[in-house]
Amino acid sequence: MEREHISRTFDTELNEIREKLLEMGGKVEMMINDAMKSLVERDSDLAEQTIDFDHEINRLEVEIDEKCLQVFATRQPAARDLRFLTLALKIVTDLERIGDQCVAVANRAMELNREPALKPYIDLPRMARWASVMVKEALDAFVRYDDGLALKVCNDDQFVDDLNEQIQRELLTFMMEEPETISRAIKINYISKCIERIADHATNIAEMVIFMVKGKDIRHTLSS
Amino acid sequence: MEREHISRTFDTELNEIREKLLEMGGKVEMMINDAMKSLVERDSDLAEQTIDFDHEINRLEVEIDEKCLQVFATRQPAARDLRFLTLALKIVTDLERIGDQCVAVANRAMELNREPALKPYIDLPRMARWASVMVKEALDAFVRYDDGLALKVCNDDQFVDDLNEQIQRELLTFMMEEPETISRAIKINYISKCIERIADHATNIAEMVIFMVKGKDIRHTLSS
Repeated sequence: MEREHISRTFDTELNEIREKLLEMGGKVEMMINDAMKSLVERDSDLAEQTIDFDHEINRLEVEIDEKCLQVFATRQPAARDLRFLTLALKIVTDLERIGDQCVAVANRAMELNREPALKPYIDLPRMARWASVMVKEALDAFVRYDDGLALKVCNDDQFVDDLNEQIQRELLTFMMEEPETISRAIKINYISKCIERIADHATNIAEMVIFMVKGKDIRHTLSS
Repeated sequence: MEREHISRTFDTELNEIREKLLEMGGKVEMMINDAMKSLVERDSDLAEQTIDFDHEINRLEVEIDEKCLQVFATRQPAARDLRFLTLALKIVTDLERIGDQCVAVANRAMELNREPALKPYIDLPRMARWASVMVKEALDAFVRYDDGLALKVCNDDQFVDDLNEQIQRELLTFMMEEPETISRAIKINYISKCIERIADHATNIAEMVIFMVKGKDIRHTLSS
């Protein structure tokens, strides 16, 4: 009975971590969408809000890390739970850095919003939507131990990389034909790279999930 | 006596992890230097070797992760040891991603080596040296619990950021004045960003070390 009680409490703690991670993921997705919206709709107030919001992501990172440490210290997690907890620690770091990328996008958006628009943004918001879905699915894959979904995320990364290359090529044409666009084009290029990095973080999470579910021989066959 | 034996074995295990991390760090530093050398000396063979070498970094990542998991599972690490182990798990991920950045630099170096040189590289190798020292010092700070050294690493990041901005400004001038340099300038710019990311990883490690040594309220006051 006592043992059952301990095990129930342990499950509750793991569930709390799971839920906090999903909460953090949801907030990060919102940041991705808001950062992009602040660019597309030239809304610098929203960009500022997005930058401020990063504190909440940082707060959640510390909270989840502490919670994991506490469970490590008070329980003796083994096997699957142990892998879950160590992965949670790593995923939190990826989510926090996605937040940093959103801040970088919002900062560049504010700069770009002060200048005339170079062209309507079409591919960038598509890329951001993909990246945002990849983050969501990577976390879903994690909490459900779903390596199939994780593999989908890894494969989706190619599409984001392709979009990024396409954007870079297009900007290159702009810069060559109209050198006065170079400074703006470089900022847009930077934003494109930030989104690509966000998708990379999602891919990293997904690869770690496959590693967790399938064991140690899977990681680095996808990325290398 | 038995307890003392267990404690000695535990120390040995932690030392093994410490040493493996330093080994991985040393190899990552070498990759940074080699990737940059392959660009500066137009040595595409070295670039290829650097790309191949990333497998070794990936192997070490898996090995250290497994070792940490094993210690978690068989010991009941508490307090300082617990923080050390969770941080080791996070640091390994940063080191592995620095390896990925070196691969990206080496790939771009191979592309650039096929075209005429734009200009002699001066600031880029300086930046790479700084980044490489930052990685070394961040790891030294970790194994010695030295928050003073970690803080130095965080502060050094500004210098790398400044160099990156300077390189970007200089490339911008090139591109504006001679549009035929744009394609090469963008590749050099990309390399500069990769080095900046490497320094960011070192800074992330250093921030986590300060967090480990000083407790929970320090993180995110430096980065945000």
